[in-house]
Amino acid sequence: MPEKFFMERALKLASDAAAEGEVPVGCVIVRNGIIIAEGRNRREETQNALHHAEILAIDNACFALHNRRLAGCTMYVTLEPCPMCAGAILNAGIDEVVFGASDTNMGACGGVMNIFEEAFGFKPKLYGGFMAEESARLLKDFFAKLR
Amino acid sequence: MPEKFFMERALKLASDAAAEGEVPVGCVIVRNGIIIAEGRNRREETQNALHHAEILAIDNACFALHNRRLAGCTMYVTLEPCPMCAGAILNAGIDEVVFGASDTNMGACGGVMNIFEEAFGFKPKLYGGFMAEESARLLKDFFAKLR
Repeated sequence: MPEKFFMERALKLASDAAAEGEVPVGCVIVRNGIIIAEGRNRREETQNALHHAEILAIDNACFALHNRRLAGCTMYVTLEPCPMCAGAILNAGIDEVVFGASDTNMGACGGVMNIFEEAFGFKPKLYGGFMAEESARLLKDFFAKLR
Repeated sequence: MPEKFFMERALKLASDAAAEGEVPVGCVIVRNGIIIAEGRNRREETQNALHHAEILAIDNACFALHNRRLAGCTMYVTLEPCPMCAGAILNAGIDEVVFGASDTNMGACGGVMNIFEEAFGFKPKLYGGFMAEESARLLKDFFAKLR
């Protein structure tokens, strides 16, 4: 079962992103009960289309484990992964994905479609909606400030 | 219309990948008739799940243009993009994608499914099967040697 402690850390990273003017999304990757990698949205700072929280976390996790397969890992991410990030989860073979808020614009884990229901031969355990209110609140506050 | 010159460069990068023991996939990104970024598969070398040819090319292109949107760009890639790479194309807003061989295992541009037919609100011009024989031959030779 998902643990609050890890999502709280992901929410803190999301909050850090918001403070820097980034859409608040945070992500941690856990293995054997330990956070081995983290990431937060840095798309504006770096002007890089790839720099979603999940991609930066997977990049760090592969570096930390020196392994392109992240078997035995669980990802906690505050927002439902987009197609790019869901595809990266697939390529890395991450066993479990716990996400907070759903994304009806860009979500590829059920929000718009579910990439893991397609015939790519890999399906992580998905837990959606975990601490979704906290995640959605961060996003709502961020977009309210922009207007 | 796709130009052979650019796919020939992508094929050269794919061939370089094969020489280093990587599945041969190469990619270039073109803007205003000039190659602004390149990438080739480096997944084994770096042990990084993200290091597909397209991701490394997009990373380089965003850096080169200092822009997370790659509008006005055309990607040439020797193999049909996977879900991660197709999602990255979507996030970067690349206008045109020219690919060589289809991928019935991992292709997300028609091979297994087409991510651009889903409701993500972005659809590049897709040209599949361009110089597909040359690309497929590289892949076939690579996997024949492995066995």
